[in-house]
Amino acid sequence: MKHLYGNAVVGQSGGPTAAINATLAGVIRGVKEQQGCGPIGTLYGMRNGVEGLMQERLIDLSAYFDSEEKLSLLEHTPAAALGSCRKKLPKVGENDAFFESMIAIFRKYNIRYFFYIGGNDSMDTVAKLSEYTRSHDYEMVILGVPKTIDNDLVGTDHTPGFGSAAKYISVTVQEIIRDCAVYQVPAVTIVEIMGRDAGWLTASSAIGRVVNGIEPDLVYLPERVFDMQRFFADVRASLEKHPNVVVAVSEGVRFADGHYVGEGTQTGATDAFGHAYLAGTGKALELAVKAEIGCKVRSIELNLPQRCAAHLASATDLSESVATGKAAVKAAAEGITRQMMTAQRVSDDPYTIVYEPKDVSEIANKIRYVDDRFINEAGNHVTDACCEYLLPLIQGEAACVFENGLPKHLIL
Amino acid sequence: MKHLYGNAVVGQSGGPTAAINATLAGVIRGVKEQQGCGPIGTLYGMRNGVEGLMQERLIDLSAYFDSEEKLSLLEHTPAAALGSCRKKLPKVGENDAFFESMIAIFRKYNIRYFFYIGGNDSMDTVAKLSEYTRSHDYEMVILGVPKTIDNDLVGTDHTPGFGSAAKYISVTVQEIIRDCAVYQVPAVTIVEIMGRDAGWLTASSAIGRVVNGIEPDLVYLPERVFDMQRFFADVRASLEKHPNVVVAVSEGVRFADGHYVGEGTQTGATDAFGHAYLAGTGKALELAVKAEIGCKVRSIELNLPQRCAAHLASATDLSESVATGKAAVKAAAEGITRQMMTAQRVSDDPYTIVYEPKDVSEIANKIRYVDDRFINEAGNHVTDACCEYLLPLIQGEAACVFENGLPKHLIL
Repeated sequence: MKHLYGNAVVGQSGGPTAAINATLAGVIRGVKEQQGCGPIGTLYGMRNGVEGLMQERLIDLSAYFDSEEKLSLLEHTPAAALGSCRKKLPKVGENDAFFESMIAIFRKYNIRYFFYIGGNDSMDTVAKLSEYTRSHDYEMVILGVPKTIDNDLVGTDHTPGFGSAAKYISVTVQEIIRDCAVYQVPAVTIVEIMGRDAGWLTASSAIGRVVNGIEPDLVYLPERVFDMQRFFADVRASLEKHPNVVVAVSEGVRFADGHYVGEGTQTGATDAFGHAYLAGTGKALELAVKAEIGCKVRSIELNLPQRCAAHLASATDLSESVATGKAAVKAAAEGITRQMMTAQRVSDDPYTIVYEPKDVSEIANKIRYVDDRFINEAGNHVTDACCEYLLPLIQGEAACVFENGLPKHLIL
Repeated sequence: MKHLYGNAVVGQSGGPTAAINATLAGVIRGVKEQQGCGPIGTLYGMRNGVEGLMQERLIDLSAYFDSEEKLSLLEHTPAAALGSCRKKLPKVGENDAFFESMIAIFRKYNIRYFFYIGGNDSMDTVAKLSEYTRSHDYEMVILGVPKTIDNDLVGTDHTPGFGSAAKYISVTVQEIIRDCAVYQVPAVTIVEIMGRDAGWLTASSAIGRVVNGIEPDLVYLPERVFDMQRFFADVRASLEKHPNVVVAVSEGVRFADGHYVGEGTQTGATDAFGHAYLAGTGKALELAVKAEIGCKVRSIELNLPQRCAAHLASATDLSESVATGKAAVKAAAEGITRQMMTAQRVSDDPYTIVYEPKDVSEIANKIRYVDDRFINEAGNHVTDACCEYLLPLIQGEAACVFENGLPKHLIL
């Protein structure tokens, strides 16, 4: 195997998570480990993803991370320490000048390794850059490193960042269920959980079932059509069992006609990838239950803490995120390119993961939905199999460092 | 001193907190400690406060809590393990039959000690029962044990439950600030925090200032009139400094005419004490900023997790909550009655608290607002003195027990 000697650059893109910095730390660790024996020299970080790369806003991460303490702190810092962006690259063939400017920057810094940590949209960036460099004269290794709380990337058992979000959601829903149990007055509490297309995060609200038997009464995922009349019937049936009904619902649930349940209350804005900003699925259902059933109702939108609550990160997720970053560097140093590093579950008992690169063009712009076998027949809850798939991902409590009562974060 | 021999009953009332069960554990511990030498026999728990008491729904807590493990688990369980209620007692003289039925139950179980753990409205219950028994023929000891995340009881340095809510808020706001920092697009994030009348919880979002210098750009409390034009000017000035503006606002902020800022979006419902249910202060400001400034805006309502996130409870708050419960029992055993147990800060350095009973009739139905010296002149932030008052209350992380990835709770 011919080695490609040169420097590397790493970026973070898309929505932040509690674990994306752990993946970054994994890439930094990986580069440090091969230094002296491997082909990669300096590791640069691009600020704000490819946006900052195009402006040459680079930071020498090899120099900055000169201690185990800094790396460990980075692993427990939420959000993207390098900053993020939502830039969509042009299609290959439509704006070659863009790619040529990017390659000019790579040449200037002798960058031959490109690591991009992100979700679905970021893999689109990786796929396009892979495609462009394949047919143009600049040899480089390009690897996608997955991250998304949504767990909706195909080809991988799960995505780094998801386990921590799932842990935050499952713990918080357990606490909300305790809180709701104190009164005797019939009341419905609707918890709105992130997930535009896939219901993995909402499904996580039910993990308690296989741990302590405590779970929401009803769980609605975007994988099933939402029917308001069936929902009312489900809520009424739950209220007959006990007065404190807790419902978990994905922000992305839709009616049979394709309209989002929260559409009436959404902002109408869309992001650079054309995704509608949703807000208000919980609120819409709150108002509907109030009008139809007339009992006490409230809605809770878990909102940003789902993706940034590093104080409650899953230790399993953090260590896997680090391992994914390291595995990406190891693969790159071996010349593997145009791939995304995936996690394959080779055993359930004991839970065992191996890391495996897969062609990024087979991954980008696809969505991995919650499996049919994970959703109950009535479409208003998840199955035991689903909880058992999710449970290993939330194991362990991350050793977040507190100083004077507050978590310590690393700010680059 | 003449001892009053008999049994005791304890109840929890009002909104749940992450620490109200620690106070209950303190009462149980206090009763256990004096058993054999003190005047109190069996400790009963009333389910759902005075509502359950009137239905004789009592549980023998002395028998149930037969192990340190159960007590410790109770201390780390959020919400009210005994259940709660929002029942308002009749005014003394208006419905003597009500009080006589209650006293009949006390006689039946030989209950001579009444401990009621709660906030402002619960102290109203304590004050009324105190007043009734003072003038009627049933000798008993009645003590209020404070609990409220709102920290708005007069006569005490702070209230059990507040420190944990303050810790949740300060940690979560730190994480939200990290999350918001990743993009370069100008954006305003409005965090709506509980507090109908007093701004203590919202003030807690700024504690980071004296720890790591990280705090929201703007903080609005209900103690100051909210002016929309001044708010717009504040936000614009903040956006000139950096693109990621974070605003903390109390749900209870009002305009000069007395209307709540969130009133347009509130439900219109009121609780048994006539308090309006507020919802939507953050949403109202989000829409206002969107219309006026036109940048990216979002609002986050921290909602129930503020009061039930036991996984992030303050160790200081939990240990003080236990101590308050124990102090109440000790005082009761000495014959002190018709008082609420308060915490007095006798030293800032080192932070030192002593427990002191105070006349409950001087406490009930009053509100302790955030001190003037704790709010800046512009009325859009808190002072260093405020952060220094708050900081000791969030110290230490509670040793929440996790089992299989989820927190373990005690269910009575």
